[in-house]
Amino acid sequence: MKKLILFFIVSVCGLSLYAQTKYQSRVMTDTLYSNVLKAKRAYTVYLPKSFEQDKNKMYPVLYLLHGMWEKNDVWMNRGHVKDVMDCLTAGGEAREMIIVCPDAGGGDPNIFQNGYFDMPGWAYETFFFTEFLPYVEKRFRVMGDKRHRAIAGLSMGGGGATCYGQRHTELFCAVYAMSALMDIPEEGAARFNDPNGKLAILTRSVIEKSCVKYVTGANEEQKNELRSVAWFVDCGDDDFLLDRNIEFYHAMRQADIPCQFRVRDGGHTWEYWHSALYICLPFISRLMGV
Amino acid sequence: MKKLILFFIVSVCGLSLYAQTKYQSRVMTDTLYSNVLKAKRAYTVYLPKSFEQDKNKMYPVLYLLHGMWEKNDVWMNRGHVKDVMDCLTAGGEAREMIIVCPDAGGGDPNIFQNGYFDMPGWAYETFFFTEFLPYVEKRFRVMGDKRHRAIAGLSMGGGGATCYGQRHTELFCAVYAMSALMDIPEEGAARFNDPNGKLAILTRSVIEKSCVKYVTGANEEQKNELRSVAWFVDCGDDDFLLDRNIEFYHAMRQADIPCQFRVRDGGHTWEYWHSALYICLPFISRLMGV
Amino acid sequence: MKKLILFFIVSVCGLSLYAQTKYQSRVMTDTLYSNVLKAKRAYTVYLPKSFEQDKNKMYPVLYLLHGMWEKNDVWMNRGHVKDVMDCLTAGGEAREMIIVCPDAGGGDPNIFQNGYFDMPGWAYETFFFTEFLPYVEKRFRVMGDKRHRAIAGLSMGGGGATCYGQRHTELFCAVYAMSALMDIPEEGAARFNDPNGKLAILTRSVIEKSCVKYVTGANEEQKNELRSVAWFVDCGDDDFLLDRNIEFYHAMRQADIPCQFRVRDGGHTWEYWHSALYICLPFISRLMGV
Amino acid sequence: MKKLILFFIVSVCGLSLYAQTKYQSRVMTDTLYSNVLKAKRAYTVYLPKSFEQDKNKMYPVLYLLHGMWEKNDVWMNRGHVKDVMDCLTAGGEAREMIIVCPDAGGGDPNIFQNGYFDMPGWAYETFFFTEFLPYVEKRFRVMGDKRHRAIAGLSMGGGGATCYGQRHTELFCAVYAMSALMDIPEEGAARFNDPNGKLAILTRSVIEKSCVKYVTGANEEQKNELRSVAWFVDCGDDDFLLDRNIEFYHAMRQADIPCQFRVRDGGHTWEYWHSALYICLPFISRLMGV
Repeated sequence: MKKLILFFIVSVCGLSLYAQTKYQSRVMTDTLYSNVLKAKRAYTVYLPKSFEQDKNKMYPVLYLLHGMWEKNDVWMNRGHVKDVMDCLTAGGEAREMIIVCPDAGGGDPNIFQNGYFDMPGWAYETFFFTEFLPYVEKRFRVMGDKRHRAIAGLSMGGGGATCYGQRHTELFCAVYAMSALMDIPEEGAARFNDPNGKLAILTRSVIEKSCVKYVTGANEEQKNELRSVAWFVDCGDDDFLLDRNIEFYHAMRQADIPCQFRVRDGGHTWEYWHSALYICLPFISRLMGV
Repeated sequence: MKKLILFFIVSVCGLSLYAQTKYQSRVMTDTLYSNVLKAKRAYTVYLPKSFEQDKNKMYPVLYLLHGMWEKNDVWMNRGHVKDVMDCLTAGGEAREMIIVCPDAGGGDPNIFQNGYFDMPGWAYETFFFTEFLPYVEKRFRVMGDKRHRAIAGLSMGGGGATCYGQRHTELFCAVYAMSALMDIPEEGAARFNDPNGKLAILTRSVIEKSCVKYVTGANEEQKNELRSVAWFVDCGDDDFLLDRNIEFYHAMRQADIPCQFRVRDGGHTWEYWHSALYICLPFISRLMGV
Repeated sequence: MKKLILFFIVSVCGLSLYAQTKYQSRVMTDTLYSNVLKAKRAYTVYLPKSFEQDKNKMYPVLYLLHGMWEKNDVWMNRGHVKDVMDCLTAGGEAREMIIVCPDAGGGDPNIFQNGYFDMPGWAYETFFFTEFLPYVEKRFRVMGDKRHRAIAGLSMGGGGATCYGQRHTELFCAVYAMSALMDIPEEGAARFNDPNGKLAILTRSVIEKSCVKYVTGANEEQKNELRSVAWFVDCGDDDFLLDRNIEFYHAMRQADIPCQFRVRDGGHTWEYWHSALYICLPFISRLMGV
Repeated sequence: MKKLILFFIVSVCGLSLYAQTKYQSRVMTDTLYSNVLKAKRAYTVYLPKSFEQDKNKMYPVLYLLHGMWEKNDVWMNRGHVKDVMDCLTAGGEAREMIIVCPDAGGGDPNIFQNGYFDMPGWAYETFFFTEFLPYVEKRFRVMGDKRHRAIAGLSMGGGGATCYGQRHTELFCAVYAMSALMDIPEEGAARFNDPNGKLAILTRSVIEKSCVKYVTGANEEQKNELRSVAWFVDCGDDDFLLDRNIEFYHAMRQADIPCQFRVRDGGHTWEYWHSALYICLPFISRLMGV
């Protein structure tokens, strides 16, 4: 069909086309086997236009984390990451990078083990840092230093990205959190009838890895480390997680850690996260390599 | 899944939810039989939140036309019209309206008869105005006057919307054309080996119904009629149809017919048309009922 | 000079100008004598293009309040209200309205009595509602009903606008608060050496008229009244008043009073307030007359 | 007054301020004597925050040109360049740079010699490149290479910036033209009663240095040189110069020279040029040093 459209453009509309490149950005999904999780894990990757063209070029990398009830392909299928990146790189607002979307569960957290943290029966954080990240960065010509690595995510993945960035300031130059599950009020965990249910376990892990408490409890050395990362917090005014994000930003200001903060119009929706890409990807592009 | 997410929000995040309404906007697809086309034609409709709630309420209507190689559901599936409308009405930037997406062919114009105009074997314009519009407006509680009816479209559908608006100034208060196929250079039609092929026929119909020539050839009465419609032309700076849109806008200025014109960053892509909705729907909302 | 530029456009650039109207929007400054304040008070007014043209037309009105250390002409001179309104009305995003900027002190609050509230020696709120508003609305063909009257302001004027809107829900359909002084922490008032100094008096008046406490202390009837107004709170992420605005928005959500909230990039600066006009004026335009 | 506001913030609002720097960006105006023009010429400069702090630091430079009937201070006084830069550098969207605004005449072109080109009695282009640019770049610690030098301007200054960029591709990495006087139709020059009047001379110089004809007449070598510069053309849909800008962009596309093009809402106004800074300064910042 692409070819037919091209024929139409060239022969009917009479346009002398701009130098047509045979290279295009592309999206691929694959799996790796995890010894930590004792299972295969899927992931989806965006590769920029020049990736096939220049076989020696190395790239910055962005890890882009999905939310609860979702999996690795949602950032491409509903977030339209490829389309957005193609626009932003064409206009010069984003630089070429590899974007990696892992799978933190596979969907419904009532059925599947889920989440970005280590918890009973699901050592996902261990998997991510000891298996997944090294594997991906080797396979896809990733530069592999802090100055060219960033992380972002939405909702549960926004909390995951923030937590990963906090505990691995040596790995990431920038964190962009969208509608992030920064914390859950303590009473949240008590509400489950079955404390060993998958969703109950996940809830406790979020409370234990509270992004807010990490900042309020940080000592001077940790604060200094946090200052070596560029932070961006973005949450809608109708989002049920807004108060958690305000608490996080408040903690960051109290700790004198620079942080961008935006409250835009919207709720906990894909329209919000899609539009957030237009802020996130230029923000990260400006920081990479600085 | 929605119910599970709601449970999570309420019981875990400890949020006293805003008054939860059981009514939501929705999208439906259906067909009608056309005596003109001697075939069933599909269409997809967006119905606003209050539609089921208040069974007597009447609504403004927007006809939203797809491009070549596409069909009726693409504005919902890739344009995310429902999600955009839900955002914009929640924030007050768009008013509730019914949005109707007809099917002007069914896909590949090399295989199917296609396009918005009357042509040999495909009297689509006749179908649209004598069968489709009356049927839809009766079925869905549409107000049905010019002040509450608008039309918009992308590419071939942008040309369709403009042409319909030009020839039916008594029906539409506003036209929003995205990346519109306003015309095709004369030599375009000559390039087909088979002049009776479906794409060749379609090409000739676009040339015959040139939106540009309609304006340059308009007499004073026609110009006055055109001035009774609010026009908006929106086309990307990398779009292969930009010159056609410039010609149209130039003709409108020469004819002293007020017209908004925007050239934003981008090409002939869905990211462009999706973002155009955020301009189009508030524009149309402001004009409806004025 | 305007005439020379016009000559240049017409004769050199060869443009057939759009129908040139001899009527333009304009800004005027005048004074009235206040029996309440026992002094003359200045004010500045924006009158839309059609004001002189149609001598019988009535208009909606927006009261636009300046901040501390400023006076009535600052919204025009630095906020460029006329230029912004001319743009927004030409593009259809704002409707024609009269914009009134009162003078709440005359500059430095260490020297002049200052502020929007009644306080010892400065019954400004009484002046505003019993003298200023009636006078202005009579002089300038203001419609004069709640549905066509709104109020907005920046910093101290954002607090003033919010407070006026809270206590006069029968007068205003919409309130837009920019970087608003919604409250001052209690300890603030204790810090002045001279509790009878003008700035100390002003500070106490802001604490007494706390916009936050008004919401947290509102009974059901008052909450219902507050729900009859459309609220918009807009404050930069680097603004020293952000926490006060967050407290206000939090109180509004707790009280189930719909309120728009935005945190955009920026501090307590005129660039922020100028850009806020592009959100404020369309917001208010959409609500007027609804 | 700044000190009083600071006192208010700190002592009344109870805010522990972010690390307060004693260094601020600043604007200064000065003059140099031109042997070419046999006169003193004024100029206004924006110096970034770190300029006084780090006395050895070198900076990129942007030349920012005013329009007809204006002079060197207008970009600061009405364009608010300092305020915009302070915002954009704080948010990371623009990098620190020196911004230089020369004076191309001093105001009314009927009275003063005016314009950016060499013409009888006014060898301004010679002055600019042989005297002004070397002087400024030596005085203000400018890096002084193509990769860190850009030029922009509005109206007559947009034409000046484009023309300078075309004829000195070895000097500038980027050109941003706002509402640019890219050309004047030939018949324009014939309309002056006095062909030796200052405005008539200026008009002829614009026709001779037509930015459009430079592109349409460029040979392959010149086209290649033009491709070494990043171009951005930005003009309002109600601007009387829009057709000239369309002609320029059309010529650039025909010549296969990459160029960004935007048509936003607005006319030939300061609101347009002020908002253009928010696109121009990030665009130039992204390109500098690349």
